[in-house]
Amino acid sequence: MRKIIAVLFLFQVSYVLIAQEPAKILSSVFDEALTDRTAYNNLEYLCKHTKGRIAGSAAAEKAIEYARQALINAGADTVWLQKVPVPHWVRGIEKCSVTSSLNGEKDLAITALGLSVGTDEHGITSKVIEVHNFEELKTLGLKSIHGKIVFFNRPLDNKILNSFSAYGGAVNQRTVGPSEASRYGALAVIVRSMTQSLDNFPHTGVTRYADSVNKIPAVAVSTLDAELLSQWLKTDPSLTVHLVSTCRNYPDTLSYNVIGEVYGSLKPHEYITVGGHLDAWDIAEGAVDDGGGCVQAIEMVRIYKKLGIKPKRTIRAVMFMNEEMTGTGGKTYAEEAKRKDEIHYAALESDRGVMSPRGFGFDADGPKLEKLQALASWFSPYNIRDFDKGGGGSDISPLKALGALQISYMPDSQRYFWYHHSANDTFEQVNIRELQMGSAAIASLIYLVDLLDL
Amino acid sequence: MRKIIAVLFLFQVSYVLIAQEPAKILSSVFDEALTDRTAYNNLEYLCKHTKGRIAGSAAAEKAIEYARQALINAGADTVWLQKVPVPHWVRGIEKCSVTSSLNGEKDLAITALGLSVGTDEHGITSKVIEVHNFEELKTLGLKSIHGKIVFFNRPLDNKILNSFSAYGGAVNQRTVGPSEASRYGALAVIVRSMTQSLDNFPHTGVTRYADSVNKIPAVAVSTLDAELLSQWLKTDPSLTVHLVSTCRNYPDTLSYNVIGEVYGSLKPHEYITVGGHLDAWDIAEGAVDDGGGCVQAIEMVRIYKKLGIKPKRTIRAVMFMNEEMTGTGGKTYAEEAKRKDEIHYAALESDRGVMSPRGFGFDADGPKLEKLQALASWFSPYNIRDFDKGGGGSDISPLKALGALQISYMPDSQRYFWYHHSANDTFEQVNIRELQMGSAAIASLIYLVDLLDL
Repeated sequence: MRKIIAVLFLFQVSYVLIAQEPAKILSSVFDEALTDRTAYNNLEYLCKHTKGRIAGSAAAEKAIEYARQALINAGADTVWLQKVPVPHWVRGIEKCSVTSSLNGEKDLAITALGLSVGTDEHGITSKVIEVHNFEELKTLGLKSIHGKIVFFNRPLDNKILNSFSAYGGAVNQRTVGPSEASRYGALAVIVRSMTQSLDNFPHTGVTRYADSVNKIPAVAVSTLDAELLSQWLKTDPSLTVHLVSTCRNYPDTLSYNVIGEVYGSLKPHEYITVGGHLDAWDIAEGAVDDGGGCVQAIEMVRIYKKLGIKPKRTIRAVMFMNEEMTGTGGKTYAEEAKRKDEIHYAALESDRGVMSPRGFGFDADGPKLEKLQALASWFSPYNIRDFDKGGGGSDISPLKALGALQISYMPDSQRYFWYHHSANDTFEQVNIRELQMGSAAIASLIYLVDLLDL
Repeated sequence: MRKIIAVLFLFQVSYVLIAQEPAKILSSVFDEALTDRTAYNNLEYLCKHTKGRIAGSAAAEKAIEYARQALINAGADTVWLQKVPVPHWVRGIEKCSVTSSLNGEKDLAITALGLSVGTDEHGITSKVIEVHNFEELKTLGLKSIHGKIVFFNRPLDNKILNSFSAYGGAVNQRTVGPSEASRYGALAVIVRSMTQSLDNFPHTGVTRYADSVNKIPAVAVSTLDAELLSQWLKTDPSLTVHLVSTCRNYPDTLSYNVIGEVYGSLKPHEYITVGGHLDAWDIAEGAVDDGGGCVQAIEMVRIYKKLGIKPKRTIRAVMFMNEEMTGTGGKTYAEEAKRKDEIHYAALESDRGVMSPRGFGFDADGPKLEKLQALASWFSPYNIRDFDKGGGGSDISPLKALGALQISYMPDSQRYFWYHHSANDTFEQVNIRELQMGSAAIASLIYLVDLLDL
């Protein structure tokens, strides 16, 4: 009887330990994240010393070396670089002006779309036709479009609450618009910047030419200048735009993913990947997109090491290269994993900015999703309450085929597109506490997913 | 039987209407708020044309007239001004420098505390003693403190998640510190700015002298300069500070609360008050504190009128005057309400910034609190999930004695104290969508509290 009581007592003790330990760990993780400036300092370095680190650039090389060193400083058990083939695209001279016999002349704030082809140094001068979707293009047809610049001017829908959904509803103008316009003989494309903001920053981003079309120059215009151009076109449809964009595509080159590991204590050959992308658009410091995601992954390593958290599985902080153009960092990472028969248990991507954490999204269903959503209770002391269905990200999605649970880190999305892909994406836009809260949230979630075998 | 079925059918229809109508209304409220720039434009005017609108100033008078007109433009059924007695305090010349035989000389970024007394134009030159709390003051005693400047340098605790709680744990250095230091013969007080940020903005705020003490000059110093002063004191405790602050208190004057009503359709003599404070510190544009709260209250009126929402009770948008110094706006409003035997059903204050909405706090218990918390389900489509115990605010708290349910609007708090009471509180710090989401959240909550008689 005494033995049974002793066993029951032990059972109770360990039960209480299991129940209380994670809460204590999470509290330590938040305390550590909120009182340390390393991640913020790392972000400042990436922004101020590796600005414009698009894949294939010298700035990207510098960022790779910095991230490698930062992972070593964080105490990672091993750090290495993984070769990634990347495109090499370089922006040139950019000028754009509109001339209207009725309204006068005005320079427009533009920036070339990533991977777009350029004009020659003399540029293009042409009439402009404004459209809002591909149906309109079709209706207008070759007759109306041939020999003109197509101006895509469909704004993000402000009624859509989630900014990423609003972006998703407009971005095909940028990604596919130039190819679609080319089918009808357009000379070039000007796309309204993908932001809800009304300001003078042009926002770039990649365009993807279809194989079958003639590649035409493509630029983004600031939202304020898009409004102006649209206004002028209403009164003077025969105005002309002069566009110069001497960007060029060079042969592919090599770059690297940067990877740091905290070795697993029980299942070292199972991996959980946590990452962001190290590349950033050439016109941006890349604080919000996605320096923040990178330094949060490094910070997870630092926190685990500092607090002595020993995960069961091997946790990898991965800074992917070339998310912005062709996603070869994520693809290469998954290909290598497959080649080595690695077991990938889960993967979390932080590429939605570094605003205050709201929660996580999970690509799961049924009882699995329910278990993941039940994690919310651990986070309620931190006001992190959104544990929703739907997770992933472009860098981790290739790991899905290997069975890795897809997780998205979800900070507040309202102001993200004020910065995204523009010169307005600077270090100063990041609040240290919002960054720190995110680091703590990510480190905590990964700790729990690993501990509880979710 | 047919009659019964008809009655049941009607019952079912009205049940469905009751169940669906609020969801539709909320959706319309959010759509309207997210696609209209009036509130943002109102905020821009308050910031750029009535900057520094502390009670008793010419800027405050201009803000009162603007707010009155904005309420009329919003369609309020009636708009009026309510006389409020206010103090009249005016900042003077401000200079502060530290001289150390060991470290050299340096100007410090300071700003006088509101209602503080000044120095003469020659200022004070004195040794400095650093303390962190009132226990330390007591321990040091008259002998160590007499004839010196006391430097309060206890930072906000970064481990505290809610920024308002962190502020609450440090702000007694500013509000009571000068009086406490005076008891031990201090010549003046320098207080570390009440912010988690490390930067060069000094943050002002009111100090309240006890009746029994000799009033001594009191200023806030930027956090970076607080760190420097502390560092220099470690190596050179006999350094001196020269402090000039020629601010002055003038006789009390008159100002106004600005009030606009949407008449109640069923219970016009019951009131729900929704407000922020119109005054702002003289060094600030007062975007976050609290122009945002004001324009959100005006926006509620505009939305109700635009959408034809007819509340049962009379809804009042109130822009309180003089929250920052002696709170006479809120006191006067409640005194007048009592004098007129008004029934005050509920009151909501928005004075915690205009970041993304997280939820609301309610000063209620038991079943009442449960009913209010159940409102969360209406807001889950908008990711507004914090419906917590604890609500109120300094302007609406005098209404509590009249039985008004106290409600706080709770936006994300992480970056609030970067701006609060400083020259960094500018229009540019506000994101239009975060402001709009807040307007929609407040208008929706008040609609439900009124509709459901909560």
